[in-house]
Amino acid sequence: MRVKVVSTGFYAPPEVETAADLAPRIRRSESWILSRTGVARRHISHEPMEVMAAKAARDALADGPAPDLILNASTTPRQLIPDSSVYIHQELGLDMVPGHTVHATCLSFLVALHSAAAYIEAGAYKRILVVSSECPSVSRNFDEPESAALFGDGAAAAVLEQSPRDESSRILAFNMRTWPQGAHLTELRGAGLRRHPNSPDTRPEDNLFHMNGPAVYRMARKRAALLIRKSLRDAGMNTDDVDLVVPHQASGGGIEALTKYGFHHDKVVNIIGEYGNCIAASIPMALALAHKEGRLHRGNLILIGGTGAGLSVAICLLRW
Amino acid sequence: MRVKVVSTGFYAPPEVETAADLAPRIRRSESWILSRTGVARRHISHEPMEVMAAKAARDALADGPAPDLILNASTTPRQLIPDSSVYIHQELGLDMVPGHTVHATCLSFLVALHSAAAYIEAGAYKRILVVSSECPSVSRNFDEPESAALFGDGAAAAVLEQSPRDESSRILAFNMRTWPQGAHLTELRGAGLRRHPNSPDTRPEDNLFHMNGPAVYRMARKRAALLIRKSLRDAGMNTDDVDLVVPHQASGGGIEALTKYGFHHDKVVNIIGEYGNCIAASIPMALALAHKEGRLHRGNLILIGGTGAGLSVAICLLRW
Repeated sequence: MRVKVVSTGFYAPPEVETAADLAPRIRRSESWILSRTGVARRHISHEPMEVMAAKAARDALADGPAPDLILNASTTPRQLIPDSSVYIHQELGLDMVPGHTVHATCLSFLVALHSAAAYIEAGAYKRILVVSSECPSVSRNFDEPESAALFGDGAAAAVLEQSPRDESSRILAFNMRTWPQGAHLTELRGAGLRRHPNSPDTRPEDNLFHMNGPAVYRMARKRAALLIRKSLRDAGMNTDDVDLVVPHQASGGGIEALTKYGFHHDKVVNIIGEYGNCIAASIPMALALAHKEGRLHRGNLILIGGTGAGLSVAICLLRW
Repeated sequence: MRVKVVSTGFYAPPEVETAADLAPRIRRSESWILSRTGVARRHISHEPMEVMAAKAARDALADGPAPDLILNASTTPRQLIPDSSVYIHQELGLDMVPGHTVHATCLSFLVALHSAAAYIEAGAYKRILVVSSECPSVSRNFDEPESAALFGDGAAAAVLEQSPRDESSRILAFNMRTWPQGAHLTELRGAGLRRHPNSPDTRPEDNLFHMNGPAVYRMARKRAALLIRKSLRDAGMNTDDVDLVVPHQASGGGIEALTKYGFHHDKVVNIIGEYGNCIAASIPMALALAHKEGRLHRGNLILIGGTGAGLSVAICLLRW
């Protein structure tokens, strides 16, 4: 699909919580947190998700024209109805622009990027804002130290347009698979019909994140490797052709594992030490920071991918 | 976009609650309910949303091949994580098919239909299942009689494929607009970050539907008329060319108002008397019932549209 990421945007809230700050709350040591998760610091938001989203979106939109579609790619909404794209729209002060929310948990941004590319390829929209904003910190379960030590808050955005005829920017491959037998490995059981907030049977921990990180890693490892190989094959490329890997920041170990698939350590964007796992915002935050640091050049081959609750794996190959 | 709805599916749970049954719970009379909402009966589900979704999806998929993408277009999820497409996938017993959720409140199905059409037009997927399943009955606020009298439960689905070269099926126009100044008119304030289920400040009514139907109607009336006119103009069509109107079943009055835009009463699908407002499932339920009743013929011009929380209006013109 002949589509180009014309700009990216980033926002992390100013307050930082270090592994040392968190350690007593989860009754583990600082070194336990660092060795298990790789998360030395995380940012904690006291702003509404739509305010963080709008800050990242404004960074991406800059002085350019308004988008003709807003895709909110965030897991945790401001509220159930209306969907959060409406409040991002409101914060940005736009006029009549349509929007909706795409939810595929940690893969929401990547799925929304692909959906935006299809809209542009089909001629349905011309300039699409995709934005992820996540505040998982408030839903951490401090009785589940491993997952509680992973999460952080943040937001990021990207603007997509059709690639000009004389440029090579495009999506070369996109592959996603879901294995529902892994659905129980990453859950937030509340906030829906199964454990309705008003039901007397709903326990507080139902409204907090549950994640069995090691089991996700074991289940995803080979499946991710196969999907990376398939995506490279679809695009007629090899591992060595990839200039940069932008993975979901699931865990320090999960990111490190990419070197086992043949990607040199220097080619893998790793921001988990500073920001933790920001759910759907992790991929666009890593992309936006790589962009700001000058690590993305037009014509580069970028592999974006990761795992998500489901259990799902998605891999996208992008000619930047 | 050269896309064809190849099949539709429908499911309503067996239990029926009549206006007479509901009247004492909202301290209004049966005739008050009928005159204000037009909802004589509604169906009430005791099944999980994904079970209802799978029943509608199986009706649509019939003996055909598995879809290569599942788009869940439902407002109320089974739980926050993973997104509900995973559980619909699990109920259907499919293998590795990717999926995600599209949330645009009452317009979720229409937005997902348009997204699916773009995917197919762009060559990203070949056979897409779009499914809506809603159980708003459990989140009715009986202290707000007008909205409590509107809602009902139900599910419906559609399968989309590329239109064969010798067939005329396609999307001729799609227009959506959002006015966030109307966001407060239709809300469910809970289940997100603003009124977190575990927050002591969250009140039970925050987890129930709030809708100011008359104000939505006043705000949407002219805007919907303008968007219908624009969509017809985009497609080079007139009001008289439309063979069937499939509106969101927002309220009896809202559906009747379509006759003021020049559509003859007989051309407007009205199922609100039997099913009420089933949020995102209303449009595909109306579409599937019209299909089953033989009111949709290949080559017909179909106008699908409605209002949604946001406030949003969307209109789609489809060559069936």
